[in-house]
Amino acid sequence: MIKEFMGKDFLLNSEPAVKMFEAADKMPIFDWHCHLSPKEIYENKQPEDIAWLWLAGDHYKWRAMRSCGVEEKYITGDASGYEKFKAFASIMPNLIGNPMYHWCHLELRRYFGINEILSEKTADTVWEKANAAIKAGGFTPRELIEKSNVSHLCTTDDPADSLEYHKLIAEDKSFKCKVLPAFRPDKALGIDLPSWRPWLSAMEKTAGKEINGFAQLCDVLKDRIEFFASMGCRASDHAFLYVPYEEATDSELEDIFASAKSGADVTVEQADKFKTALLSCLAGEYSKRGWGMELHIGPIRNNNTAMFNKLGPDTGFDSVGDREIAEKLSRFLDSLAVKGVLPRTILFTINPKDNYVLGSMLGNFQSSEAESKIQFGSAWWFNDNIDGMREQMKALANLGAIGKFVGMVTDSRSFLSYPRHEYFRRIMCGLLGDMVAEGLYPYDEEALCKIAEDISYNNAIKYFGIK
Amino acid sequence: MIKEFMGKDFLLNSEPAVKMFEAADKMPIFDWHCHLSPKEIYENKQPEDIAWLWLAGDHYKWRAMRSCGVEEKYITGDASGYEKFKAFASIMPNLIGNPMYHWCHLELRRYFGINEILSEKTADTVWEKANAAIKAGGFTPRELIEKSNVSHLCTTDDPADSLEYHKLIAEDKSFKCKVLPAFRPDKALGIDLPSWRPWLSAMEKTAGKEINGFAQLCDVLKDRIEFFASMGCRASDHAFLYVPYEEATDSELEDIFASAKSGADVTVEQADKFKTALLSCLAGEYSKRGWGMELHIGPIRNNNTAMFNKLGPDTGFDSVGDREIAEKLSRFLDSLAVKGVLPRTILFTINPKDNYVLGSMLGNFQSSEAESKIQFGSAWWFNDNIDGMREQMKALANLGAIGKFVGMVTDSRSFLSYPRHEYFRRIMCGLLGDMVAEGLYPYDEEALCKIAEDISYNNAIKYFGIK
Amino acid sequence: MIKEFMGKDFLLNSEPAVKMFEAADKMPIFDWHCHLSPKEIYENKQPEDIAWLWLAGDHYKWRAMRSCGVEEKYITGDASGYEKFKAFASIMPNLIGNPMYHWCHLELRRYFGINEILSEKTADTVWEKANAAIKAGGFTPRELIEKSNVSHLCTTDDPADSLEYHKLIAEDKSFKCKVLPAFRPDKALGIDLPSWRPWLSAMEKTAGKEINGFAQLCDVLKDRIEFFASMGCRASDHAFLYVPYEEATDSELEDIFASAKSGADVTVEQADKFKTALLSCLAGEYSKRGWGMELHIGPIRNNNTAMFNKLGPDTGFDSVGDREIAEKLSRFLDSLAVKGVLPRTILFTINPKDNYVLGSMLGNFQSSEAESKIQFGSAWWFNDNIDGMREQMKALANLGAIGKFVGMVTDSRSFLSYPRHEYFRRIMCGLLGDMVAEGLYPYDEEALCKIAEDISYNNAIKYFGIK
Repeated sequence: MIKEFMGKDFLLNSEPAVKMFEAADKMPIFDWHCHLSPKEIYENKQPEDIAWLWLAGDHYKWRAMRSCGVEEKYITGDASGYEKFKAFASIMPNLIGNPMYHWCHLELRRYFGINEILSEKTADTVWEKANAAIKAGGFTPRELIEKSNVSHLCTTDDPADSLEYHKLIAEDKSFKCKVLPAFRPDKALGIDLPSWRPWLSAMEKTAGKEINGFAQLCDVLKDRIEFFASMGCRASDHAFLYVPYEEATDSELEDIFASAKSGADVTVEQADKFKTALLSCLAGEYSKRGWGMELHIGPIRNNNTAMFNKLGPDTGFDSVGDREIAEKLSRFLDSLAVKGVLPRTILFTINPKDNYVLGSMLGNFQSSEAESKIQFGSAWWFNDNIDGMREQMKALANLGAIGKFVGMVTDSRSFLSYPRHEYFRRIMCGLLGDMVAEGLYPYDEEALCKIAEDISYNNAIKYFGIK
Repeated sequence: MIKEFMGKDFLLNSEPAVKMFEAADKMPIFDWHCHLSPKEIYENKQPEDIAWLWLAGDHYKWRAMRSCGVEEKYITGDASGYEKFKAFASIMPNLIGNPMYHWCHLELRRYFGINEILSEKTADTVWEKANAAIKAGGFTPRELIEKSNVSHLCTTDDPADSLEYHKLIAEDKSFKCKVLPAFRPDKALGIDLPSWRPWLSAMEKTAGKEINGFAQLCDVLKDRIEFFASMGCRASDHAFLYVPYEEATDSELEDIFASAKSGADVTVEQADKFKTALLSCLAGEYSKRGWGMELHIGPIRNNNTAMFNKLGPDTGFDSVGDREIAEKLSRFLDSLAVKGVLPRTILFTINPKDNYVLGSMLGNFQSSEAESKIQFGSAWWFNDNIDGMREQMKALANLGAIGKFVGMVTDSRSFLSYPRHEYFRRIMCGLLGDMVAEGLYPYDEEALCKIAEDISYNNAIKYFGIK
Repeated sequence: MIKEFMGKDFLLNSEPAVKMFEAADKMPIFDWHCHLSPKEIYENKQPEDIAWLWLAGDHYKWRAMRSCGVEEKYITGDASGYEKFKAFASIMPNLIGNPMYHWCHLELRRYFGINEILSEKTADTVWEKANAAIKAGGFTPRELIEKSNVSHLCTTDDPADSLEYHKLIAEDKSFKCKVLPAFRPDKALGIDLPSWRPWLSAMEKTAGKEINGFAQLCDVLKDRIEFFASMGCRASDHAFLYVPYEEATDSELEDIFASAKSGADVTVEQADKFKTALLSCLAGEYSKRGWGMELHIGPIRNNNTAMFNKLGPDTGFDSVGDREIAEKLSRFLDSLAVKGVLPRTILFTINPKDNYVLGSMLGNFQSSEAESKIQFGSAWWFNDNIDGMREQMKALANLGAIGKFVGMVTDSRSFLSYPRHEYFRRIMCGLLGDMVAEGLYPYDEEALCKIAEDISYNNAIKYFGIK
């Protein structure tokens, strides 16, 4: 039997899966990690057209186009929106098995009501229909968010950020979604990068004082955490190529800080010491407040120097790293646990080879502080596809308690990406429902629907302490 | 179609799989690697209740409970057996996709005749029925072993051990299962651990003489191997975080030994040299006697310092390591092969990323000394689940000759864990039977049943030279 | 339902898969990477018997035999062809799940018209039928190649090779397959191996001049590339245990060269610098000519010293390595891209743990120079099986544009190995067709057949610029 393309039971191959998805589909969305711009949410501008919505900033689509040999002119260059859209539509048939294929068609169906299969042949029709739909309204950031039944979302914010747009959004009581900041001190930790000294200046400006040492930096960041907390923040986020665990003395840390502030080079070992100590200090604050600390481990960024020089970061030139992570991660988490400052922690890996490392690492540090206090973050970035999500969930189910999983995030810069929650829910219900169909779990509809609802929404609300 | 939960054809999804399992199911069990206590087998005590049987020492269950946020009081603390059992029952629904879910229900069905689905709701009923069954008898260690049709089992024993309980068990001719020792010199090899000097003293006591050098240690251990052999030993076992291959001269080894015996610190390099040389010496003895040498590679132990200080080792705080292992393992095995002392060897990995490393490593050192002289050990510990076992067997089938596979071991501390052999056999027959159903192998019932029987039992009996 | 063993729809489990394979099956073969001997193609000798065809040089079969405990006498020893064939036939039933099982039966069916299942029982029958078929004719190298519908094949040739047999083959206009050389300078790059100085002498002889420095070596190799190009070469090939990226100055390179030529030892760092610089120089030449540069990463070769001393390389003692490869590979490719000399590149890994590293690495360096300019090479060597191919294709589909995949190569030394293309095509059509059946891609027969035909043949022809 051949199933209808992305039909009603898309990704649902058993009756229990269908039942579970019915329950999951009714839940709102808590998108606790994304890269949406609070400014754009506040300003709530009418989008130009589907090229602008789809192709102005989506590096996933850019990569796909480059993979098919499309000229950069039609990707980030000066071709018109229509030309870019047409170039993108033309490569679609080659993307069999790529999540982009599903994301695009989900977006066309759920937001635009367009059921055409996108290809060179249908490009013009889709272009016209989509742009007519945009013109007809309902496509501003806030409209898309509300239409998507998002109850809460967490943006990604630098400690030096004033959070002014979060304030403005919060003041507008007509907008039902809670837009919360998330604390992302990557620039503060990145003492080995050219961005550190400019960041320090910006931080000094925001703090209204000079920062002249490591201890002082910690104090300033603690103040910022307090401020973020007052704005509703419940999560922090950190990205690493590898886990930089290295112990240091206080005086070493002050020397490293002073040296870096003076503009001297910082060795790898020094940077690792600085990062360990600073993250440890921050973790204590997260822990106190019951925040979730997200650790995103593994991507190699900006691999293509020529294109980085031309287009900057986040333009589609990142990929999957493969360092050993288990022992340093263990040592880092243990160092926090020993000090009693290990917060709720969500471990993400970019490399599926680490699924069993992370899936088993959780168990070392669980406690009654929270249900699955240490979480295995859902399949991320390059793994955010059917296979990747299935593998992450199978590892979690085998090694932990998937019933307590905090589930999906979009991790996206696009206001149209909420169907990725639907995609995840279908995959999750498909996977767990199939276990029932195969006799691996009892067909207890109530228990199954509870699991589906919890993973879709309730667990994350509870985990992050959302009121 | 929805299959009955753990019904007659549990894990068997094709007719050939069903036929193969009929054959496999009739075979006895040779559990050639477990952690059962010979003392407990000898003493053969009546168990208290199901809480004692299930929760007194099973760190798999403890981890699952911690993952669901259960307080330590109800895990290893002073709560009553009933309270602990209830807490465990309550988390069960969250364990969809976890092997624990199947193990528990297999044990309830096969030993207790209880068909209830365990959850908070059924906890009291199961508690009463199970304890009544225990009271009614048949639950002592030897009864469980005989009921499980175990023909032979290998415990795990330190070289300094007197094997007195093995002697006592062997003297009791009424007990049909052969309980054999296995030689596990981890403490002898662990020169870099605090346990080494105490172990050396214990070894000196058993040996009745001082051990004053590396060569002498080798001699003492050779004597112990001879003694173990006289007690029916056919296997040795070694656990490593990584493969410690490092060549050394005799005088270096004597210096390392002297230094460590005097209480001085041992560097990583020194420890690796010591381990390589000692294991090489032991391997020669194993080889002479046709023993199987098990190498268990990869777990990181005791990750949580605070909990280790509170509860000690083997309490649920271990996880999956991710070191590079291929080249050192190759060099180590080759060094033995060159000297003509490479024994039958079974390679286990804790990290499924290594499946293709091990699966292909075998082929480098096979010989006509035994059928699949170098074996890929079955999916171990964190991999001992449906997915892990399927992946290990698929790697072995693709890269070697799965027909010669020595199959499953419980690796368990519990007398109730023999259904894991049934679980394995179902998965194995399911996997291979499905190949037939898909047209990948001829439907030759005789050949298929032979494969199922061989992997279930015959291969291991032959491989370890059991008479 | 139980499918017929290797029946008409072998590996095709859905209607779309069947339709796609009908299209794929009609395409010729472009075997752009193999180890066939141009001399043997030219000489076109009548094979002795099936033992000679199957067992004289196939180390895959030798490994399988050793895995089953067959004595070396019956593998590479002095047993008769018949005895060896019988020994091989006898182990077959143990190879359930091994690609060898399918390769052998495909070869028996497609070339010999023999439908028996090979085992000890049928060995004599198959022996007689196969040898009768060979005697009846159609089994010389050229006949097998033509029967297999091979339009082009690329052999593997040392830069010092005269390509005399390529010339001779090209002169014979009656032979329809184009036999092209491929440039494999492994010996030139292997400055750390004993083979380097002998190679340098051979190269000097071919070049008709002394090579007295690094720059001069580059020049000589550039001339060879020009010569290979004149002979129709479109591909180069390089094998590495790991990616040896290390920058160096010109004078360092000259020192390393001089030192090595004088017979002094070369350090790992020196060798890496030499390899990086030389490969970078060669890459510029490949790039200019639109050649594809194949990088084969990861195998550990000659693991068994005793057997290497007895039998030499390529005799079945290689296995899967597990080094970290992501960052050095990124740096190496970027160094070429920055200089504008990054050729079309095909990345192969021996370890499936790297599938997501390579699958995502591609995207960093794509450009409009070619459709999927950077390719993820098909599942290679130990991965050349159903699972390995499915995993490689799923990774590629998820992370890139599988519609532009250049597909399969035999990588083989045997003239009977072309059914591996059929095997690959069935697996590919099975995988992609199943996506359609599951509703993951529209059932657009035209689009699907185009994908199947492109991956089977057209993409590679276009990618390598075959006229």
